[in-house]
Amino acid sequence: MSPRPAFDAELAAVLGDAWRTDPAECLVYGYDNSRMQAMPVGVALPQDREQVVAIVRACRKHRLPIVPRGRGTNTTGATVPIAGGIVVSFERMDRIVDIRSGDRCAVVEPGVLNGDLQAALAPHGLFWPPDPTSAAFSSVGGNLACNAGGPHAVKYGASRDNVLALTAVTGAGELIVCGASTTKGATGYDLQRLLVGSEGTLALIVEATLRLVPAPPGRSALRAIYRDATSAAAAVARLMSQPVTPSMLEFMDAHAVRLARDVGGADLPADAGALLMIEADGALHELDATIGALSKAAAGEGLVVIDAARDEAARERLWAARKALSPSLRTLAAGKINEDVVVPVSRIPALVDGVQGIARDAALPIVCFGHAGNGNLHVNILFDPTDAGQCARADAALAKVFELTISLGGTLSGEHGIGLAKRDFMPQAVTPATLALMRAIKGVFDPDGILNPGKLLPPA
Amino acid sequence: MSPRPAFDAELAAVLGDAWRTDPAECLVYGYDNSRMQAMPVGVALPQDREQVVAIVRACRKHRLPIVPRGRGTNTTGATVPIAGGIVVSFERMDRIVDIRSGDRCAVVEPGVLNGDLQAALAPHGLFWPPDPTSAAFSSVGGNLACNAGGPHAVKYGASRDNVLALTAVTGAGELIVCGASTTKGATGYDLQRLLVGSEGTLALIVEATLRLVPAPPGRSALRAIYRDATSAAAAVARLMSQPVTPSMLEFMDAHAVRLARDVGGADLPADAGALLMIEADGALHELDATIGALSKAAAGEGLVVIDAARDEAARERLWAARKALSPSLRTLAAGKINEDVVVPVSRIPALVDGVQGIARDAALPIVCFGHAGNGNLHVNILFDPTDAGQCARADAALAKVFELTISLGGTLSGEHGIGLAKRDFMPQAVTPATLALMRAIKGVFDPDGILNPGKLLPPA
Repeated sequence: MSPRPAFDAELAAVLGDAWRTDPAECLVYGYDNSRMQAMPVGVALPQDREQVVAIVRACRKHRLPIVPRGRGTNTTGATVPIAGGIVVSFERMDRIVDIRSGDRCAVVEPGVLNGDLQAALAPHGLFWPPDPTSAAFSSVGGNLACNAGGPHAVKYGASRDNVLALTAVTGAGELIVCGASTTKGATGYDLQRLLVGSEGTLALIVEATLRLVPAPPGRSALRAIYRDATSAAAAVARLMSQPVTPSMLEFMDAHAVRLARDVGGADLPADAGALLMIEADGALHELDATIGALSKAAAGEGLVVIDAARDEAARERLWAARKALSPSLRTLAAGKINEDVVVPVSRIPALVDGVQGIARDAALPIVCFGHAGNGNLHVNILFDPTDAGQCARADAALAKVFELTISLGGTLSGEHGIGLAKRDFMPQAVTPATLALMRAIKGVFDPDGILNPGKLLPPA
Repeated sequence: MSPRPAFDAELAAVLGDAWRTDPAECLVYGYDNSRMQAMPVGVALPQDREQVVAIVRACRKHRLPIVPRGRGTNTTGATVPIAGGIVVSFERMDRIVDIRSGDRCAVVEPGVLNGDLQAALAPHGLFWPPDPTSAAFSSVGGNLACNAGGPHAVKYGASRDNVLALTAVTGAGELIVCGASTTKGATGYDLQRLLVGSEGTLALIVEATLRLVPAPPGRSALRAIYRDATSAAAAVARLMSQPVTPSMLEFMDAHAVRLARDVGGADLPADAGALLMIEADGALHELDATIGALSKAAAGEGLVVIDAARDEAARERLWAARKALSPSLRTLAAGKINEDVVVPVSRIPALVDGVQGIARDAALPIVCFGHAGNGNLHVNILFDPTDAGQCARADAALAKVFELTISLGGTLSGEHGIGLAKRDFMPQAVTPATLALMRAIKGVFDPDGILNPGKLLPPA
């Protein structure tokens, strides 16, 4: 399993025992939350940027692919080494270099876990907005690579909206410094936001300066149950067209409500047609008025009942049920295609209706829930992976979901990214000239095509 | 003054009488607010994207430079045709294509004036955050090209933070579509934010989908006078490290206060050492508490007096004096170098102190004011342009201001951009490898180097 001996010796000289070629170790770095898997020829565990530069230069010399890896929580296969080569895991570059509360920024290495960073920020009264469900065990570098979002993105933005500067190593082995630790900047091309969401195909991030936001003093939540998904989707559009922006606005369809109750143990009526979880945050003296405005917007055709989850415990219970949804889907069917399409908010009713139609045509359950305030829905197509007919119908349904999304002015992914899972759909979402330009930009950062080949962009 | 006849005929065929080569017309499209000037060989006034594609293809064939132009309000020479070629003015592409209040977005052509857009959005209870002083007569396309900001950027971000999608024509004459009209997206490389701030060197924007924000129901303002600039700068750092984000946080040094009073007619004490204008916005019932929190943070060492400008008229008077500052500087000296450096907020005291030292050494007045909440100060070096000694000292002082800014972790420009005025300072702010990458990216979008040559990037 060892790569060519000269390369092996070079990496060992740079990394010592942080260069691993043992097949058992390679195996565990070869899969991610997509459940896809491939074997790398070795795993590098660098401790600093100089080692990362040396690794990239060695790989370039030997034309070996590099797959950068945070903690492998992505769902798209973005960290699966399908082209062989090596995995570079940033787990040892996990320092919080600096927390500068006066500048509302933190300087971190890519391997720090999102949850660990949030814990370190809490005493400063600050947080970093991205809050994917995986936050406790996903890394900031991985969050940046995938432009991770989460429920609070509706008010605070996703990863790309919360980065000030990045230091990174290109596929040519050059260290670049993009942006500055200022909250405003008009000095040349904005390379740092280009790197966010590029899934390790342009450069390896070795340091990030993150934009922080003051933690709100209080939170309050509402739970609104609707007769059907269409009514709930219409309420989302109403909620987002009035002045008070919720700090969270989550949608669950009837399947999702039932799962949250039966599997997640949430206190929810089994016969709800759809549910919205609406959260507001802010100063304590403002919350009542804010919740009042949101309640008013949530009310309308098809609303069955609206309840306040005023105390923190009630809010936490509601949220725990939502977080348990994704894993609990496995109890319905062994096969799951989990997508995260995004449409303009006003088109959510059309998306929800259309997906229900696709489910009927495919004779497969499709469970929808997600970040409705951004128009970002997790569409879960459930099937029996041992049934060839169901597999084919699931694939066909997925293609129809993407087609519907794009016809509604939306796009393939809101926060999961493209990786391997969706790369072949890119030509539907992006025009040929734009795709050609993306390929050319990849060529500038990575002239030999060694950085995470086969991800994000479809084969030429 | 006509370009080569074949080219002239091609442009006339595409544009009819919207292709102008009359020297008198060329003259007025040859300068901008930098007061620099050069003559183009002609001016194109396209009406649609197809004409823009045809113009770029003709220029590429004939290797003629293209300078895209909004309304020429930039201060950096970004729209001066220093390499000859043609000016493409977007003044006839000024339609507001769609306002979709439910999706909080607007689709516009690049030539629409910022102020006209805001007026059209007001009945929907929405606004587009960028609010440069030039808003009434600068175009959205120009705002995007320069990543324009303004006083409200401290809470709402600059142009780059408020764009969802762009359609543009590259230097190869290809129409590209970047982003989608969704508030979240992780579908390939983020080209739209790369185009923002690229000053027309990568592509010509022909349509923009803008992120809109609900207009706040109310506003309230404070005026805080300090003994000296250092005390005011320290208050800025305190204001930005507490949870309530002001909607505006403007700084004026002693010179600026005197000018605002004597020339702008503001009701201000002449002997103030420095002044902060602090604004909050939000729901009416929240404003008192918000202003209370901001007052508390503004108080501290060196505060002389703090007053509320509670009614709209008082707020407007205060703000009018601030807006009059930039033009009124011309009354102090005929020569003005107006820069807009940006530093982390905690470093504002060091920046203000350092600039005062540079002014003393140069024996020239330097007036500082600007968007302190973002650490973005307008540093105005005043001199007599007929005095060679003063000119040399002003240039030397400017270089020292940039050097100081970069040593404080800041960068060359917060919102004005680089253009011609600052391109030669880019190697101080950006590492050689990063600059090389910016050049290579330029080459991908604009293989023949015809788009706004000589701007943003220093000569190789």
